[in-house]
Amino acid sequence: MTFRYKNVYINETGTVVGPEEKKGPLNNYFDKSHDDFYFGTKTWEQAESKLIEEAVDITLGKLEKNRFDMDLFISGDLLNQIVASNYAASTLNIPYLGIYNACATSVEGLIIGANMIEANQIKHCLCSASSHNNAAEKQFRYPVEYGGPKPKTTTFTTTGTAVAYLTYNKKGVKIESATLGRVIDMGIKDAYEMGAVMAPAAADTIFRHLQNTKREADYYDLILTGDLGSVGKKILVDYMYTEYGIELHHYDDTAAMIFDLERQSVYSGGSGPACAPLVTYSYIFHQMRKKKLRRVLLVATGALMSTTMVNQKLSIPAIAHAVSLEVVE
Amino acid sequence: MTFRYKNVYINETGTVVGPEEKKGPLNNYFDKSHDDFYFGTKTWEQAESKLIEEAVDITLGKLEKNRFDMDLFISGDLLNQIVASNYAASTLNIPYLGIYNACATSVEGLIIGANMIEANQIKHCLCSASSHNNAAEKQFRYPVEYGGPKPKTTTFTTTGTAVAYLTYNKKGVKIESATLGRVIDMGIKDAYEMGAVMAPAAADTIFRHLQNTKREADYYDLILTGDLGSVGKKILVDYMYTEYGIELHHYDDTAAMIFDLERQSVYSGGSGPACAPLVTYSYIFHQMRKKKLRRVLLVATGALMSTTMVNQKLSIPAIAHAVSLEVVE
Repeated sequence: MTFRYKNVYINETGTVVGPEEKKGPLNNYFDKSHDDFYFGTKTWEQAESKLIEEAVDITLGKLEKNRFDMDLFISGDLLNQIVASNYAASTLNIPYLGIYNACATSVEGLIIGANMIEANQIKHCLCSASSHNNAAEKQFRYPVEYGGPKPKTTTFTTTGTAVAYLTYNKKGVKIESATLGRVIDMGIKDAYEMGAVMAPAAADTIFRHLQNTKREADYYDLILTGDLGSVGKKILVDYMYTEYGIELHHYDDTAAMIFDLERQSVYSGGSGPACAPLVTYSYIFHQMRKKKLRRVLLVATGALMSTTMVNQKLSIPAIAHAVSLEVVE
Repeated sequence: MTFRYKNVYINETGTVVGPEEKKGPLNNYFDKSHDDFYFGTKTWEQAESKLIEEAVDITLGKLEKNRFDMDLFISGDLLNQIVASNYAASTLNIPYLGIYNACATSVEGLIIGANMIEANQIKHCLCSASSHNNAAEKQFRYPVEYGGPKPKTTTFTTTGTAVAYLTYNKKGVKIESATLGRVIDMGIKDAYEMGAVMAPAAADTIFRHLQNTKREADYYDLILTGDLGSVGKKILVDYMYTEYGIELHHYDDTAAMIFDLERQSVYSGGSGPACAPLVTYSYIFHQMRKKKLRRVLLVATGALMSTTMVNQKLSIPAIAHAVSLEVVE
C-alpha cells in the first residue's frame, strides 16, 4: 500500500535526548540534551513521559503555537501499554491516538497523520516517538545495574523523543509518499539479533515502495533505515541484492549515526522508536535544508518482540514503514 | 475532533468468543464460540492470536474475499507489545498498523480506517480488537489459577475477537461520524475501579460529540458505552447530568450485556477491547438490521492502565473514542 501526498509538510520538529546521545556525534543538531536519565522525575518510565512533553513543548515553542491549536497527537513508545505516551497525552489533553509498531512507530505515526492532513480531515498534527534506554532494558532484558554482557549484534536503546508537526503549509520537509509495511517473520528466535530479524521487513517495504512508485533505488539521494545496526545494515544490502536484484548505492542506517561506534559502548548502534526520527529530524533535515540531500526515503524498522513470546520459543516478527521526504524548494 | 463521513460502511463483521461468553445471553449472535481457552494452541497468548485469525477468516469468508484483497489490517489488544495482533498480522501478511488505546482500541481502529476509506486512500480495511481473559489476568493482576478474590467493582475481561470490514460500498452499517477522545485523568489510583476511571473520559467524548454535531443526546436511539460496567454506568449517567446537564435516556453499556450478571461470576460485567465491538457487531447490528435501532453512538472507553505505573502509585488515565453508526436503509 503506497500513498501519494500533495499537501503534507513537516514544518517543525522537536528533539530531546539523554546522556549517551549527548556524547554522540549528532549532539549539536538536537534541540535539547540531558546529563542524567531521570530529568527531574523519580522513575525511568515517568522520565520518558517527561521527555515527550519536553519535545512537544519545544516543537510548539518554535511554532509559536500552543497545544490547544493542535487537532491530534499520535504517539507510541516501547513500554508496556505505551505508558510514556499515555501519560504525556494526559498532560497534553489533545485528541490522542496511541500506536505501536516497535521501532517502526515513528513512521507509522507520520503515515496516519499524513493521510488525515492530505484529506483535509485535520490541519495540525503532532507525531511523537520515544524510547528510554534504562526503562527498555529493565522491561525487555535486565535492569542495567546488573551489568550483564551482551553480544555485539545487539543494539543500545536510544533515550530520547522526536516530535514532528505535520500540516498543509508548504514549509520545511514535504512528505511526498509513504508505503505501509507488512509483518515479516523469517523464523529468527534470537532476541540479540534484531538486525537480522528486521532486514527482510525493510527489504520488503523498500522493494514494494520502489515498485509502486516505479522508481529506481537511485531516485533517492539517501535510503535511510532505522535501526538495523551495523550488522543488520550489511544483511539488508546483501538481501536486497540477492533477493530483489537491487543495489543500494546511497544507503545508510541511523543506528551507526547517532553514536560513535568506535568510541561509545553501544554494540552495533542505537535503536528504539526514537532513534530513526531523532537522526532524521536533526542531522538529515539539516542536510536537506542545506540542499545536500533532496530526496530521502526513511524506512523505520520494528522488531515486534515481546519477552512473553520469546520465552515461548516463538520467532520474532518484524515490520518496516517508509516515507519519502523531499526538501521544499 | 469530530469527523463526518459520507462513504464509509461496515459491510461485514466476524465475532469469535470464549467459553464464558458462550454461556452468556448473546451467544446466538456470535459467529463462533469456543468451549476452552486454548483453541488448539499451547498458550493463552497464542490462543488470542488464533482468535484474531479466526475472526478475520470468518469475515473474509462471508465476503467471499481473501486476505490479498485487503489494503490494510488495523489491530490492537491488551497484551504487552500487542503481541496477539502482531502475530496474527504476521500470518495475514496484509499491510498493518498496530494500535493501542486499551479498551477504546476497537473504535480507535474504526476511526483510522474510516478516515482513509472516506478519503479514498484505501478501499478494503479490516479492523480488529481482541482480548483473552486468562492472558490479561496473568499480565495485569494474577494468574487465574490463584483464585484471588476481587471487589465487585472490577470487571471480567472478555475472551474474543471482533473484526469489522470497512469499505465504501453502501451496505450494512454506515459510520456517519466519529469523535476522537482526549486522555482524562481524575486522579483515581485503584485498579479495581475502572468504571470510575473511565466514566469522565466517556462523558467528555459524548459531550464534545454532541456539541460538534449540534445534536441532543436523544438524537441517538442508543448511546452505548463499553465497558464501564454496572458501577461505572451509573457514574456516567450521574456525571453527564451534574457536569454537563445532559440526561441520558437511551443509554446502555456493553459490560452488562455480554454476560448475565445475576447468573455468571463476572463482577460488574465484561471488559477488554473485544467486549464493546463483540456486542455491537453481533446483537446491536442485528437490532439495527431489524430497524429496531437506527442511530447508535458507540463509545469505546479505555483505562490506560499499566502495572508499572500503578506500582509507582500514579493515577490511571482514561480515553474514549466515539463513532456514530446508522443502519443503511
